[in-house]
Amino acid sequence: MPDDKPRTNITSVAPGRIRVKGYDIAEMMGRKSFADVVYLILKGELPSSEEARMMDAILTSSIDHGVTPPSSLAARTIISGGNPLNAAVAGGILTIGESHGGAIEQCARILQEWAAKEGDPGKLADELLADMKTRGYRMPGYGHRLHQTDPRTVRLFAIADELKFSGKHQKLARAIEKTFADQGKPLPVNVDGAIGAVISDMGFDWRLGKGFFIISRTVGLVAQAHEERTREKPMRKLGISDYLYDGPQSRDL
Amino acid sequence: MPDDKPRTNITSVAPGRIRVKGYDIAEMMGRKSFADVVYLILKGELPSSEEARMMDAILTSSIDHGVTPPSSLAARTIISGGNPLNAAVAGGILTIGESHGGAIEQCARILQEWAAKEGDPGKLADELLADMKTRGYRMPGYGHRLHQTDPRTVRLFAIADELKFSGKHQKLARAIEKTFADQGKPLPVNVDGAIGAVISDMGFDWRLGKGFFIISRTVGLVAQAHEERTREKPMRKLGISDYLYDGPQSRDL
Amino acid sequence: MPDDKPRTNITSVAPGRIRVKGYDIAEMMGRKSFADVVYLILKGELPSSEEARMMDAILTSSIDHGVTPPSSLAARTIISGGNPLNAAVAGGILTIGESHGGAIEQCARILQEWAAKEGDPGKLADELLADMKTRGYRMPGYGHRLHQTDPRTVRLFAIADELKFSGKHQKLARAIEKTFADQGKPLPVNVDGAIGAVISDMGFDWRLGKGFFIISRTVGLVAQAHEERTREKPMRKLGISDYLYDGPQSRDL
Amino acid sequence: MPDDKPRTNITSVAPGRIRVKGYDIAEMMGRKSFADVVYLILKGELPSSEEARMMDAILTSSIDHGVTPPSSLAARTIISGGNPLNAAVAGGILTIGESHGGAIEQCARILQEWAAKEGDPGKLADELLADMKTRGYRMPGYGHRLHQTDPRTVRLFAIADELKFSGKHQKLARAIEKTFADQGKPLPVNVDGAIGAVISDMGFDWRLGKGFFIISRTVGLVAQAHEERTREKPMRKLGISDYLYDGPQSRDL
Repeated sequence: MPDDKPRTNITSVAPGRIRVKGYDIAEMMGRKSFADVVYLILKGELPSSEEARMMDAILTSSIDHGVTPPSSLAARTIISGGNPLNAAVAGGILTIGESHGGAIEQCARILQEWAAKEGDPGKLADELLADMKTRGYRMPGYGHRLHQTDPRTVRLFAIADELKFSGKHQKLARAIEKTFADQGKPLPVNVDGAIGAVISDMGFDWRLGKGFFIISRTVGLVAQAHEERTREKPMRKLGISDYLYDGPQSRDL
Repeated sequence: MPDDKPRTNITSVAPGRIRVKGYDIAEMMGRKSFADVVYLILKGELPSSEEARMMDAILTSSIDHGVTPPSSLAARTIISGGNPLNAAVAGGILTIGESHGGAIEQCARILQEWAAKEGDPGKLADELLADMKTRGYRMPGYGHRLHQTDPRTVRLFAIADELKFSGKHQKLARAIEKTFADQGKPLPVNVDGAIGAVISDMGFDWRLGKGFFIISRTVGLVAQAHEERTREKPMRKLGISDYLYDGPQSRDL
Repeated sequence: MPDDKPRTNITSVAPGRIRVKGYDIAEMMGRKSFADVVYLILKGELPSSEEARMMDAILTSSIDHGVTPPSSLAARTIISGGNPLNAAVAGGILTIGESHGGAIEQCARILQEWAAKEGDPGKLADELLADMKTRGYRMPGYGHRLHQTDPRTVRLFAIADELKFSGKHQKLARAIEKTFADQGKPLPVNVDGAIGAVISDMGFDWRLGKGFFIISRTVGLVAQAHEERTREKPMRKLGISDYLYDGPQSRDL
Repeated sequence: MPDDKPRTNITSVAPGRIRVKGYDIAEMMGRKSFADVVYLILKGELPSSEEARMMDAILTSSIDHGVTPPSSLAARTIISGGNPLNAAVAGGILTIGESHGGAIEQCARILQEWAAKEGDPGKLADELLADMKTRGYRMPGYGHRLHQTDPRTVRLFAIADELKFSGKHQKLARAIEKTFADQGKPLPVNVDGAIGAVISDMGFDWRLGKGFFIISRTVGLVAQAHEERTREKPMRKLGISDYLYDGPQSRDL
């Protein structure tokens, strides 16, 4: 009985034919962008042009943050020990835990749970923060060690506004920021929180939150590990944060 | 002396400003596609529209190949053991070794070495295969367990032709296929070999070869691990290859 | 001020001298067993001969469980993809999550929390299970897919009895087993639960629970990956559970 | 036909009975040391008391080398990012590559290949080093960044001498050291080289070389990750090498 077989709804493979969510992969090549197909495989349907542009912006936002994040450090350390590129990238992805990138899914989970209650965002935000305080939790997705205002957040919300993806989750996320400010805490939404809000307004399962970060940052990890391998000696002392940037200087699009 | 500091040429980070290869990441968001920025971080410059389209096709080609590849199996096994999404994806990427995805970089290395000699592709192909035979090596990037002719290869080469990226590396890759056929060996270029040829004609360092596969397949691994986590019980018997596909049926673009 | 420096209390290294918890590593070589030094690094003091023997028994208990556990499958899959031994073992260890080996630390945590209340073990066991039921949790460390009575559990408890390590945690663990039986549920303590009880009676931090399993099983993973690499072809179909054992037949000590 | 089934010669598992290389695991518990069983699973037979003592010394030698090795840095970075203990240890093991611990297997491979030629060790050493120089390779297992003379090497060879495990591989290893010295290069055998020589004289497959290091260092990685998790804040700046050791001061066995 076919019901007994394990099931998958992602990709069907037969000799000469690979279909992702029903669409022939060879047909999509050259006609659909990579972000389109990322959207398809995670959401089940091809995106509208607005959804595709939003997806491109989300994936671009987290592509790299330089040499110092733990994931870069781990990837460089591993390739420096004389290991292949895939091991280095895998080690980098291993670091993407609750305290590094993990805020996306936790923030999205909380926004989805509370925004579902409907009601005035400001009032929901007050209740939500009071509830978290009572239970001894911190709201994930707010504040950043380096960026006072995260330029990626500002841009992500602006694009979401323009493309009409600023629904109840973004409203709640912004209301939380305002409640913090009213309490004298300058804790702006960071890029993790902004992604959490936008993917919630786009209808994604919050459990995929860390997945967006992983897909995006993998690219940066490939670049970081490749640079370590091609420019540095094996087993050098790593973990220094005072790097000299010697790539192309500031340039305009 | 600044020369003593370690250097990086990928990303510069300052409060409120993140630049990748000199371009402001917030400015690129909404104006550049994800594939554009992947190209930028790996190549150092933003792509032309032809280069961007070629990049989209390459990244789309390897996004997923179902439940059975070793990388899917490892990712599902790890999440099934009660681990977070990032650990599952990391385990999947760990499997992408010399025998799984690794053919891209080995094939690109050989094509770049031999195509640099200039000369008639057919003659070069004969010499190259004779040389490999003498040294006891197999040519990587040819033949596939399942696909007689790999639909992704056909499409990738067609797009490269259309966009004028079919240079001496693709010519050599096709000549090798012909030499095999003349020797009575039906070993068509597989998708790894095709990517190796196209990225060589686009001017990429062969050592990035596995990187393209990693960036692309990470998306499929997120989807595979997410499906395992949301549809199956922990610690189930894994490794079965006889899956029932119950996603959307064949559909046209 | 030295207080500002990060601190470590594990190992001090100077030219020509490595000390673990104050003891010279070269002096310990040849005079202390490996299990002695494992105990030292995890507990801070060298073990008595009883503690050393208990440690040897714990580490031996989980050294391997054949080809079918998820950790073996992941390690074999990774080395089969053409990766180095360390990547394979790392992938195996990645699978050791909440549902595979993770029961040790969860069981130890619960036993340490409840045994601290002092009181009749039977009564504590009843309360503990009622409490978990109310909160919708299952007691970790009980029942096994294959072994009705786990031979390793029986032996571990017998050794603990002989060496006087059967304190209040083991008493509680056994009382829980009895409560289950009284409720008509044949859920004997499994090896994870037994290790959780014994390390608790030995005074270990429950958060090290999974560490004992990792240290022990790493050995099996090296053996599994080495066998895959030396006896099988790359990229073979993995995940089959019906293996033929062709090693030495049953033999007595 | 049973011959078609995949085979394993490591562990056989049946309800209520687990046998490693034919020996009942429950029977070995309490009667055999952990190092005995490690020897059994890697070599196929239980060790003599000399072999067991040698094994204990090898595994003790590499158990930890403080906070600064790449494997410690990776393990701490990963747990600091908010990941479970197994992910941290896996990341540490991932770093154990060609340039970190990998010298054991490379050194063992070369010693086994050249010692098989039989002949005067000094003459073999000269030829071997001349051959490697011609081919542009460095001899692995010699020299150390920190230790002029590695105390673990001295001790390992002394124990091997005492237990009669100093055969032709150790003789060749020492002759290589002498040839280096005669050439004015102070490159003493380091601990990787010494382990490579001793396991070769004990009859182990050189491909298991890195396995000894992995089994041993996994213990240190558990300790390093546990310390990071219990003493430090998440996402702190890592990679500092100037640590204050605040554990027990020097003490005698």
